[in-house]
Amino acid sequence: MTWPEVEDYLKTNTGMIIPIGSTEQHGPTGLIGTDAICAEAIAKGVGEQTQTIVGPTINVGMALHHTAFPGSMSLRPSTLIQVILDYLTYLTQAGFTHYFFINGHGGNISPLKAAFSETYTHLSSLNIPQSDRVRAKVGNWFMCRSVYQKAKELYGDQEGSHATPSEVAVTQFVYPDSIKKADLSPDVASGYPIYGAADFRAHYPDGRMGSNPALATPEHGQQLYELAVKELSESYLKFLQAD
Amino acid sequence: MTWPEVEDYLKTNTGMIIPIGSTEQHGPTGLIGTDAICAEAIAKGVGEQTQTIVGPTINVGMALHHTAFPGSMSLRPSTLIQVILDYLTYLTQAGFTHYFFINGHGGNISPLKAAFSETYTHLSSLNIPQSDRVRAKVGNWFMCRSVYQKAKELYGDQEGSHATPSEVAVTQFVYPDSIKKADLSPDVASGYPIYGAADFRAHYPDGRMGSNPALATPEHGQQLYELAVKELSESYLKFLQAD
Amino acid sequence: MTWPEVEDYLKTNTGMIIPIGSTEQHGPTGLIGTDAICAEAIAKGVGEQTQTIVGPTINVGMALHHTAFPGSMSLRPSTLIQVILDYLTYLTQAGFTHYFFINGHGGNISPLKAAFSETYTHLSSLNIPQSDRVRAKVGNWFMCRSVYQKAKELYGDQEGSHATPSEVAVTQFVYPDSIKKADLSPDVASGYPIYGAADFRAHYPDGRMGSNPALATPEHGQQLYELAVKELSESYLKFLQAD
Amino acid sequence: MTWPEVEDYLKTNTGMIIPIGSTEQHGPTGLIGTDAICAEAIAKGVGEQTQTIVGPTINVGMALHHTAFPGSMSLRPSTLIQVILDYLTYLTQAGFTHYFFINGHGGNISPLKAAFSETYTHLSSLNIPQSDRVRAKVGNWFMCRSVYQKAKELYGDQEGSHATPSEVAVTQFVYPDSIKKADLSPDVASGYPIYGAADFRAHYPDGRMGSNPALATPEHGQQLYELAVKELSESYLKFLQAD
Amino acid sequence: MTWPEVEDYLKTNTGMIIPIGSTEQHGPTGLIGTDAICAEAIAKGVGEQTQTIVGPTINVGMALHHTAFPGSMSLRPSTLIQVILDYLTYLTQAGFTHYFFINGHGGNISPLKAAFSETYTHLSSLNIPQSDRVRAKVGNWFMCRSVYQKAKELYGDQEGSHATPSEVAVTQFVYPDSIKKADLSPDVASGYPIYGAADFRAHYPDGRMGSNPALATPEHGQQLYELAVKELSESYLKFLQAD
Amino acid sequence: MTWPEVEDYLKTNTGMIIPIGSTEQHGPTGLIGTDAICAEAIAKGVGEQTQTIVGPTINVGMALHHTAFPGSMSLRPSTLIQVILDYLTYLTQAGFTHYFFINGHGGNISPLKAAFSETYTHLSSLNIPQSDRVRAKVGNWFMCRSVYQKAKELYGDQEGSHATPSEVAVTQFVYPDSIKKADLSPDVASGYPIYGAADFRAHYPDGRMGSNPALATPEHGQQLYELAVKELSESYLKFLQAD
Repeated sequence: MTWPEVEDYLKTNTGMIIPIGSTEQHGPTGLIGTDAICAEAIAKGVGEQTQTIVGPTINVGMALHHTAFPGSMSLRPSTLIQVILDYLTYLTQAGFTHYFFINGHGGNISPLKAAFSETYTHLSSLNIPQSDRVRAKVGNWFMCRSVYQKAKELYGDQEGSHATPSEVAVTQFVYPDSIKKADLSPDVASGYPIYGAADFRAHYPDGRMGSNPALATPEHGQQLYELAVKELSESYLKFLQAD
Repeated sequence: MTWPEVEDYLKTNTGMIIPIGSTEQHGPTGLIGTDAICAEAIAKGVGEQTQTIVGPTINVGMALHHTAFPGSMSLRPSTLIQVILDYLTYLTQAGFTHYFFINGHGGNISPLKAAFSETYTHLSSLNIPQSDRVRAKVGNWFMCRSVYQKAKELYGDQEGSHATPSEVAVTQFVYPDSIKKADLSPDVASGYPIYGAADFRAHYPDGRMGSNPALATPEHGQQLYELAVKELSESYLKFLQAD
Repeated sequence: MTWPEVEDYLKTNTGMIIPIGSTEQHGPTGLIGTDAICAEAIAKGVGEQTQTIVGPTINVGMALHHTAFPGSMSLRPSTLIQVILDYLTYLTQAGFTHYFFINGHGGNISPLKAAFSETYTHLSSLNIPQSDRVRAKVGNWFMCRSVYQKAKELYGDQEGSHATPSEVAVTQFVYPDSIKKADLSPDVASGYPIYGAADFRAHYPDGRMGSNPALATPEHGQQLYELAVKELSESYLKFLQAD
Repeated sequence: MTWPEVEDYLKTNTGMIIPIGSTEQHGPTGLIGTDAICAEAIAKGVGEQTQTIVGPTINVGMALHHTAFPGSMSLRPSTLIQVILDYLTYLTQAGFTHYFFINGHGGNISPLKAAFSETYTHLSSLNIPQSDRVRAKVGNWFMCRSVYQKAKELYGDQEGSHATPSEVAVTQFVYPDSIKKADLSPDVASGYPIYGAADFRAHYPDGRMGSNPALATPEHGQQLYELAVKELSESYLKFLQAD
Repeated sequence: MTWPEVEDYLKTNTGMIIPIGSTEQHGPTGLIGTDAICAEAIAKGVGEQTQTIVGPTINVGMALHHTAFPGSMSLRPSTLIQVILDYLTYLTQAGFTHYFFINGHGGNISPLKAAFSETYTHLSSLNIPQSDRVRAKVGNWFMCRSVYQKAKELYGDQEGSHATPSEVAVTQFVYPDSIKKADLSPDVASGYPIYGAADFRAHYPDGRMGSNPALATPEHGQQLYELAVKELSESYLKFLQAD
Repeated sequence: MTWPEVEDYLKTNTGMIIPIGSTEQHGPTGLIGTDAICAEAIAKGVGEQTQTIVGPTINVGMALHHTAFPGSMSLRPSTLIQVILDYLTYLTQAGFTHYFFINGHGGNISPLKAAFSETYTHLSSLNIPQSDRVRAKVGNWFMCRSVYQKAKELYGDQEGSHATPSEVAVTQFVYPDSIKKADLSPDVASGYPIYGAADFRAHYPDGRMGSNPALATPEHGQQLYELAVKELSESYLKFLQAD
């Protein structure tokens, strides 16, 4: 879009969708950019379905606990808070008021919520007329009820909680030419909480958390993608219209 | 305790309990310090039961959304992150490794989790031998399964989600001389999400979120206190011993 | 207090007392929380005598130089500045204008003064009507003239400057069941300035600075407490009324 | 890529290419994401040609001076410094040492250079063996000699310095379905320096700086793209091999 | 000096003198740079007398309370802390260990002390061998006993506490060609504490605090200068040699 | 100047010149303060010629890459940004709007430009009437066309890019009593880019970058000084008057 197109859009609509992912290890076969790929694809789907502007993807999120694996990147939570505060400050000055973050990574949830609180207070200290009407919300595609049920149905206990077959499947749907194969040990650690990076790698040596991503297929990915787009579209519209 | 007593303690135990509350409005009858009072009392109970040092209470947490009501105080999330990072840095230098935050306020959860991530990374950049073994966990007394069930049993739908009868009851148990009465409207707002401070007050004009704190009694408070102490003691010991 | 009670209070009074202590070693027999205990007890006394709201105690202050002794905690000065700035921002938005910090720890004085300067400037950049009338002051109970004279009279040169019998006496008055005994070397270092933590411990190996806390008694504590409450109450009222 | 693939890569190669763009107005017909689109496309080309990992695109850069136009987003320079510091810290811990930022936006140059200085110093304070060998460099595709010459040849003085036909042409090559048309005034401001956002919009009312983007074609875009890829590939390899 | 000269110096001496002043109003006749001029001149004198390197003058300090008068400049305390931390970090890496700040402005004292604490802790987290031996001290020339007595003797009560005849006299000694005259009201405010900038100007309308700078002469300035140099030289040598 | 003189000045002129240098190694014979000396002297010359206030010199700039040589000092870029933001905030509140930084050090350019962007945005968030008219510019004396040509004429290739004969000559002109001599190796490194401090020293072992400062004379210094003053005076006036 061009800036005059955004100016027109703002006359009738002040909502925006912002995809946020992560760049981090996803086990022996998952793409490092899995969370960003999923969030971006689903956000574009939601944007089309709801006629909403989709902002640029935040590709690197809060993944400090994955940084003992090569290729993982992360912002510190305090950096991510400043990033979000900057994003929303200038967008709000332009007239946006409702921000729906479509999120692909569990580690982003707490920093995002912290950032929203910090941002509301910051905005109300500026001279922006609509600052008190600003609202932000995280929509985690992998926590959609319909997605969760489908993943359970497809993978049962082998869904796990990181490098899951469901997120891998969505990346296979988006990039069918980048499907990776590797011998995955049938024994995979699970159930240990997340603390620091070295500790995480010590407990989850190949990066998976209780998952079997070998079960993923592009067809599953499409099903999950469609469920996520549908449910998040409804969730977004409800968010936009509530008062 | 004196510092030589702490030195002795550290020879056999490197765990610490830290209460964290908030100083914020709790409806027309709830004490502003409700969350700190509950967290501190329950933390002391858990400390006694598990023979664990209880650190000083963090009385002011992240309650920006309550700051449109007089008497409410708050740290910004980015400030709270620095506070936690400072706390854990110097305690870890002294030899502590396991930090169990007994929390009385929902708004603290995200900033605390963000702070833990930031702290693990910070500690691993310092020259502290045990830094990679540091672990921190939030124990929310009001989200204990046993507490939740008891609250449902006692108050049903009138428990609500802020200025709840259950938290008011615990403060009545701790400070039986400070029980406040007021005419509470039977109609109380509920179900609206939390965004900024002005928006919160507009939607929850007397500060309550779906709750009827008039149902609280000191006897309920004692029951809830005991359930929380028991469940969090078990949770803490599991946290300390897991590996 | 409840928030409507604070709202009422603000109609006639915009002053607040905030106790600030520290959590740090106080020699072989002093409680780690000595400074917070003293500040909180005296602040409550001043609050009662002057009919003033007493805010939640800041339990951890600036004690970096004590952090080579186990159990000591500290904020960095830059963190403490942000904490004070946050406290005063939201309280000032609610209508408070005069903040009297009752302080139990010498190390807090410089960061507090720095924080006040930073806060005045921050507040005047916000849209708060009364921000230019905001004033903050540190009242150090241990530097009250009457307290100082009494301590000299009771302990002479053995008062020292850290882990003093006078502060220990106040904690004995507040917590008569937590009186600690230990063999205290008659030789105690004194006169060396405070630099970093390792340097401090090297020069003050048991944590005392020229003091003999074995002279403390709960009766002394009560006398010192009463002198401090009286003098700080006068000091606070003068602060509140001056213009 | 998966993390084991990155681990393998690092055995023989410690270089990485990171595209950085901006999300800002590009005149009446330029896409808001122009700088990110160009940087990402060219970075992928350079990555393929030099067999180098291409990191995730930084979509939002330092464009504060464009924020008076709707749709523009920006990080403050101090935020961008922290973002770069975070990126390079965790990548360096994993073994990377040479970072080549392919940049699509002039406003990023100063903050990036500032960030590199800040990062070198930060890294040398950590315990990372290779931290003293870390090097970062900005490669601005639009300042490549060959690109510059081609743009002069194609557009002469109508190239201008923002919303240029050359950058618009590259986006047309990348997204041929998103070519925008609008009546562009033949009079376009130029020559005024960049200060704050309101001042910028006052002097450059349609967002262009001396440019005529109507001259752009996808074919030009391809030519410019190929020149940039070629020249930056050589520049990158020289950077990687120098010592 | 050149860097090889500094390298030689460090073989036998690791002390440095750093002048710190302020750029702020000094009443109707005092130079805005009074505090920097005095600190720099006296620091050079001390440097010569004690054969010590004198670092570059910090010309702008913490003078937020003077910023309602045109020409005043200031750092926020949190900025000044970072400045000092940066100064001492790189000097300590080079081998310096003892920093003696010769200070010309009361408002710098608290931020400097806060900065020293922050710096000690920061340095001990770095891998610098001598970091635990680093010590910093503020020497306030205007608080030297001999200076204070001379000022009392020369000016009695008309010394005041800001824009004092003694500091003005030192600037007249240093810059005899820049002596300013103005009609000074015999009535000058005094005794009101320092809070924010607007409040300060309201209470001290011409900028003086109880002083009569018309009494200053260059001859007085020389006397005061010599006393300050002598006393601070002794103080510095004691600081350097103590252990 | 006194504050009433500044108040008068502001009635007709809102421009200010601020010298910024650096404190860093300048090869075996260059003074550590070379960049500050040059900037300050030239700024004073420009101030006289253009009847403009010259603010206090920023003596320590961004020279992290020189910090492996003893005597070098530096601010981190993020600190320098805060310093500039503070300077310009309080000066703008007083009525200044145009800031011309006369700069003696290449390493300051990027952080200064970053700081200007950060400051414009900060100022527009405050309630200062003239904040949107604030403009800042860096004038690098060593990059003046006339200076550059003269240096080429005097020194040809031996001008180099650090510890240049031209900057040394200006210091000799300003401080003719501090001319240093040393055996300078005829072989001097050049052409290697600047990364971190250790890397810099490894590639430039005596601190010079391709220069032969032995060619400098005070007479050259005077010539270069006069050229710089003339050209920067014109540049400043153009900056002040443009709109």
